[in-house]
Amino acid sequence: MEVGFLGLGIMGKAMASRLLKHGFRVTVWNRTLSKCEELVEQGASIGETPALVVKKCKYTIAMLSDPAAALSVVFDKDGVLEQISEGKGYIDMSTVDAETSSKISEAIIRKGGSFLEAPVSGSKKPAEDGQLIILSAGDKALYEVILPVFDVLGKKSFFLGEVGKGARMKLVVNMIMGSMMNALSEGLCLADKSGLSPQTLLDVLDLGACSNPMFKLKGPAMIESKYPPAFPLKHQQKDVRLALCLGDEHAVSMPIAAASNEAFKKARSHGLGDLDFSAVYEIVKGTAPSGNAA
Amino acid sequence: MEVGFLGLGIMGKAMASRLLKHGFRVTVWNRTLSKCEELVEQGASIGETPALVVKKCKYTIAMLSDPAAALSVVFDKDGVLEQISEGKGYIDMSTVDAETSSKISEAIIRKGGSFLEAPVSGSKKPAEDGQLIILSAGDKALYEVILPVFDVLGKKSFFLGEVGKGARMKLVVNMIMGSMMNALSEGLCLADKSGLSPQTLLDVLDLGACSNPMFKLKGPAMIESKYPPAFPLKHQQKDVRLALCLGDEHAVSMPIAAASNEAFKKARSHGLGDLDFSAVYEIVKGTAPSGNAA
Amino acid sequence: MEVGFLGLGIMGKAMASRLLKHGFRVTVWNRTLSKCEELVEQGASIGETPALVVKKCKYTIAMLSDPAAALSVVFDKDGVLEQISEGKGYIDMSTVDAETSSKISEAIIRKGGSFLEAPVSGSKKPAEDGQLIILSAGDKALYEVILPVFDVLGKKSFFLGEVGKGARMKLVVNMIMGSMMNALSEGLCLADKSGLSPQTLLDVLDLGACSNPMFKLKGPAMIESKYPPAFPLKHQQKDVRLALCLGDEHAVSMPIAAASNEAFKKARSHGLGDLDFSAVYEIVKGTAPSGNAA
Amino acid sequence: MEVGFLGLGIMGKAMASRLLKHGFRVTVWNRTLSKCEELVEQGASIGETPALVVKKCKYTIAMLSDPAAALSVVFDKDGVLEQISEGKGYIDMSTVDAETSSKISEAIIRKGGSFLEAPVSGSKKPAEDGQLIILSAGDKALYEVILPVFDVLGKKSFFLGEVGKGARMKLVVNMIMGSMMNALSEGLCLADKSGLSPQTLLDVLDLGACSNPMFKLKGPAMIESKYPPAFPLKHQQKDVRLALCLGDEHAVSMPIAAASNEAFKKARSHGLGDLDFSAVYEIVKGTAPSGNAA
Repeated sequence: MEVGFLGLGIMGKAMASRLLKHGFRVTVWNRTLSKCEELVEQGASIGETPALVVKKCKYTIAMLSDPAAALSVVFDKDGVLEQISEGKGYIDMSTVDAETSSKISEAIIRKGGSFLEAPVSGSKKPAEDGQLIILSAGDKALYEVILPVFDVLGKKSFFLGEVGKGARMKLVVNMIMGSMMNALSEGLCLADKSGLSPQTLLDVLDLGACSNPMFKLKGPAMIESKYPPAFPLKHQQKDVRLALCLGDEHAVSMPIAAASNEAFKKARSHGLGDLDFSAVYEIVKGTAPSGNAA
Repeated sequence: MEVGFLGLGIMGKAMASRLLKHGFRVTVWNRTLSKCEELVEQGASIGETPALVVKKCKYTIAMLSDPAAALSVVFDKDGVLEQISEGKGYIDMSTVDAETSSKISEAIIRKGGSFLEAPVSGSKKPAEDGQLIILSAGDKALYEVILPVFDVLGKKSFFLGEVGKGARMKLVVNMIMGSMMNALSEGLCLADKSGLSPQTLLDVLDLGACSNPMFKLKGPAMIESKYPPAFPLKHQQKDVRLALCLGDEHAVSMPIAAASNEAFKKARSHGLGDLDFSAVYEIVKGTAPSGNAA
Repeated sequence: MEVGFLGLGIMGKAMASRLLKHGFRVTVWNRTLSKCEELVEQGASIGETPALVVKKCKYTIAMLSDPAAALSVVFDKDGVLEQISEGKGYIDMSTVDAETSSKISEAIIRKGGSFLEAPVSGSKKPAEDGQLIILSAGDKALYEVILPVFDVLGKKSFFLGEVGKGARMKLVVNMIMGSMMNALSEGLCLADKSGLSPQTLLDVLDLGACSNPMFKLKGPAMIESKYPPAFPLKHQQKDVRLALCLGDEHAVSMPIAAASNEAFKKARSHGLGDLDFSAVYEIVKGTAPSGNAA
Repeated sequence: MEVGFLGLGIMGKAMASRLLKHGFRVTVWNRTLSKCEELVEQGASIGETPALVVKKCKYTIAMLSDPAAALSVVFDKDGVLEQISEGKGYIDMSTVDAETSSKISEAIIRKGGSFLEAPVSGSKKPAEDGQLIILSAGDKALYEVILPVFDVLGKKSFFLGEVGKGARMKLVVNMIMGSMMNALSEGLCLADKSGLSPQTLLDVLDLGACSNPMFKLKGPAMIESKYPPAFPLKHQQKDVRLALCLGDEHAVSMPIAAASNEAFKKARSHGLGDLDFSAVYEIVKGTAPSGNAA
C-alpha cells in the first residue's frame, strides 16, 4: 500500500519510519525538506510539495504541529487542495480543534475527496512502538481502507462518528487527566504538610484502586520539583478551557474541571506555562515565585 | 505463632481464616459468638471475652466495624484493658479516626502494653487473597514482630510513624479517590451530552495514562446508573471533609477536593448517601430526584 | 442640540422621551415604525431608515436589543454606514460584546465618522428617571460633545479609554454581581436548613456592611421562589463566562467566578435560563426539577 | 435599671459608657481592674469579681474577647456560677461558637438563672454610637426585660430563638461577606490586568445594584495593598469554615463558600492571617510572598 506523509516532526518521523519498516511505500514531505533525508535512507520517496504528494498517492496522512500548520498545508499555494479529488483520501492525525478540523474537512469534501480526522493519544515512544491510541472521525469508508495503517501505528483505533468527535474525545480525556493531576498535587501537598512522606503516598496509591501510569510516571519527579515538559501546562490548560466551553454549549456543569482550570491558570500567571502540566503542584504548594507573567 | 483475633465480620472472618490456613494458632472472639463456629472448624480456639483472648495471647489483632465498636472492645467490662500488660501487643486494624486511635493507644500504653494501628485498604476479596494494603503506625518494635502476620494478610505493609498516621494516610488516599471519581463523572457526562459514547470514553481512558482499576470497575456500572454500595457515598464524603479539615489545620488550600466535597454533599442532600460514592454521577447529570434528605 | 435615535424598545423609548422633555430635537427610527408614534406626539421627527437619520443628524445614538440588531442597523442596506461621514458621530449604547463593538467602530471610522460605545447599567426605571450609569469608550472628543445628552440620561457617565473597555467594564461588574448572587443564595439556603429565618437573614444583612440594593430587591422574591426575569439567568451566565474568558486571556485565576459560572450553568441545564438570574437559588436548594434542557 | 457589666475591652468600655450616659446604674468588672477607673469617673460602681457583680445585680451583661475568656468568667473561682440563681439573668454579648454558648447556657440554667446569648455585629464606632446589630437567642422573657439596654446599645436587635441561633446567624452573615470579598478581589484583579482602572470599577460598583458599605470602605485600601486588620483574615476563614461545617451537618452544598474558604486558607499559608480579610486580594493577584506559614 502506498501512502503520502506530510510533516516529519518528532511524531511524524517516528510514524513514517514505522510504516516503512512494515512494508508500506511512503512518499514524504516536510516544510524543511532536509528532514526527509533520514527517511529516504529508510526507503521513502520525496514529494516536493503537499500538492505533489497528494497527486502521487491515493491516501495522504498529515501529522502537523498545530492548527496553523494543518491549515497552511491544505489551503496554501501548492497545498493539498490543489490535487485532492474524487477517489483520494486525506487523513489528518494532527491535534487540532474541532473548528480547524471542520474547515479542512469541508474543503476536502467540496473537491470530491474524503476526509478523516485522527488525532492520537501518546507521544514519541508510543509512536515508535506502534502503541498510539487513534481517535478517528469523519469518513467511515476511508477509516476502513486506512485501518492497515492504523494497525501499524497504534495499539487501538476508534471510529467515533462525524468530524469533530475525535478532537472532542481528546478534550474530554485531557480534562479528566487535568483534574486527576490536580487531585494528586493536593494529595501530595497534604501528605507533606501533615507529616506523611509524599513518596509513601505514591507507593500506597500505586497499590490500590487509583493506581495509574500518570501518577507512577510523574509523581516521583513532582516530589523533586522537576517538570520536564512532556505536555506543556499551557496546552493542558487550553484543553481544560475548551472542554469547559464544550460543557457550556451543552449546559454541563463541571465544578471540578472549573477549579482545575483556575489552578492551571494560576500556574500560567506564575510563569509555569511552558513546564509540564504537573507543575501545577508548585501552585498547590505555594512555592511558585510571585509575579504575573502570562 | 499464636495470635488473638477480635471481630469476625466480613473482613475479620476472611483474615482470621487466612491466618489459620497459613499455620498460625488463632484464638477468636466475636460479639455474636456463634459466628466463631466456622473458624473453630478451621482450627481456631474461642476466647469468651476480649479480656480472655488478651490474657491467653501475647498479640491480639482487632478488626471491628466502626470507632464505637473499636472503643467498646477495649474499654468496656471484660475488655482488652483488663488484661493488657507489659509484654503484650494490641494491633487494631479497624478503620477509625485518628482521635479514636489515639485514645486506644494511650490507654494500652498506660497499662504497659504496646500498640499498633493498622487500617487496611481493600475489601473482602483482597482480604481472602492476602492482597490487603496495610497502613500501620505506632510501636515500631511491635510492627516488626507482627510482620509475619501482615505478610500473610497483605501484599504490602507500611510503617508510617506515630499513631494517627495510618488513619491520616487513608484520608489522603480517599480524598484523591473522591476527586478522581468526580473527574470521571464530569467526563462521562460531558461525553454523553456532546454526542460521544460514555463507554467509548471508558475504553479510551483504559488504554492511556489515566487508566486505573477504579474507572475500570465502576465506570460501566455508572453508565447503567447502578451504584451498589462498595464504599457508601456518605462515608466517602466524610473522609473528604476530614481531609479538608486536616488541610485547614496545616493551611493547605485544596480547591479541587473542596469542590468534590460539595458535590458529594449535594448527593447526600438528594438522598444518595447510602449508595456507592460513584452515585455522585447522578448529581453531575442532574438526574437525582429533587428533594433534600440529609 | 439635534440627535438621531435608533431603536425604541423599552430602554430606547424611555431615553428618547427623556431627551425630548429636556429640549433636544430628536429624529427617531425603529424597525417597526409604528412604535415611533408615541414619540412623535412628544415632538420627535421620524427618519425612515437608519441611513436617513444619520444623513439628517450630526450625532446619532443607537439603543438596540442585541449584537445582531446592532450590526444590522449599521451594515445592512439603508444602514448607518451609507451616510456616516467625516464630522458625524455615532454613539452605540446597546449592550454588545467587545468584538461586535470593534467591528462597528472600525467600519464607522473607515468612513470618516467618529464612534463611541456607551453601554449602560440600569433598566427601565433608571432610564425614565435619567439615572443610568454610562460606561463609554472610544472617541474622547465625541464623548465631550455628547456629554449634555449623557447628563440628561444618566446620573453618571464614565469615559474608559479605547473601544471595548465599556463592554469589558460591564462584564467585570456583572461577574461580581453573579458571585454575590450565588453567595446570597448559599446564605439563604444555609439559614433555612439550619433553622434560621431567611427573611431575618435579609433583615440582618440589610443593616450591616454587606447591605446592597440587589439583596434588598431580589431577596424577598427569592424566598417566595419568584424569579421574574429582570436580567435573565442565561445572559448573566454568558457574562460570567465571558469574564472568565477575559481572565483566561490575562492569566487571572478566578475560582469564585468559576464556581458561580458552573452554578449558573447547572441552572440552565435544569431549564431555568429564562428566569431571573436569582433563580440560581433553586439550584442551591436542590429544588429545581430534574432533567436537562439546555 | 441596674446592670452588671463584665469585660471592659474596646467594645465593652464603649458599651458600658453608653449605658451610663443613658441613665443606667452600672457595676463593672474587668480582669485588669485598673481599666474600670475611667468608667467609675463616669459614675459606675466596681464589682471585685464576676461573682460579686452577679450577687449585686439582677441582670449581668458580659462582653469578653473570646470563648476562653467567656468560659473562664463563668466557670472559674469567683465566677458567675457562684452567685447566679433564680430570678437573675445573664446576657453574654461576646462572639463565641455555639458550643461555648450552649455550655454556658446549660450551667446558668442548672443554677436556676436565665440566659441570653447576644453577639453583636459592628465594631468600636457603632458601639459608641449605639448602632450595633444585636443577634440574641435563648430566654425570650429575659430578652424582653433587657430590651431597654439593647435599645441604647444597638440600632436593631433580633430575637432568633433557642441558644446557638445568634452564633449561627453571625456565621451565615460572615460567610456571605467572605464570598463577597473574594468576588470583589477577583473583579479588581481582572479589571487591573485587562486595562481597566480598579478605582473606576469601585466607582461604577458604588453607583449600581451591588453598592455596599464594605466595598466602599475596603476597596480603596485594597488598591493600595493596605490591609489594616479590622477583621483578621484568620478569623474570617474560621467563620467560613464553621459555616461550611454547619452546611455539612444539614447537607447544604455551597461551592462558592467552599472556594472562598480555600482562597482564605491559601492566604493563611502565605502568612496573611493577621491582616484584614481583604488581604485575600493578594492571593488573587498572586503577589503574596511565596512560603508557607500557617
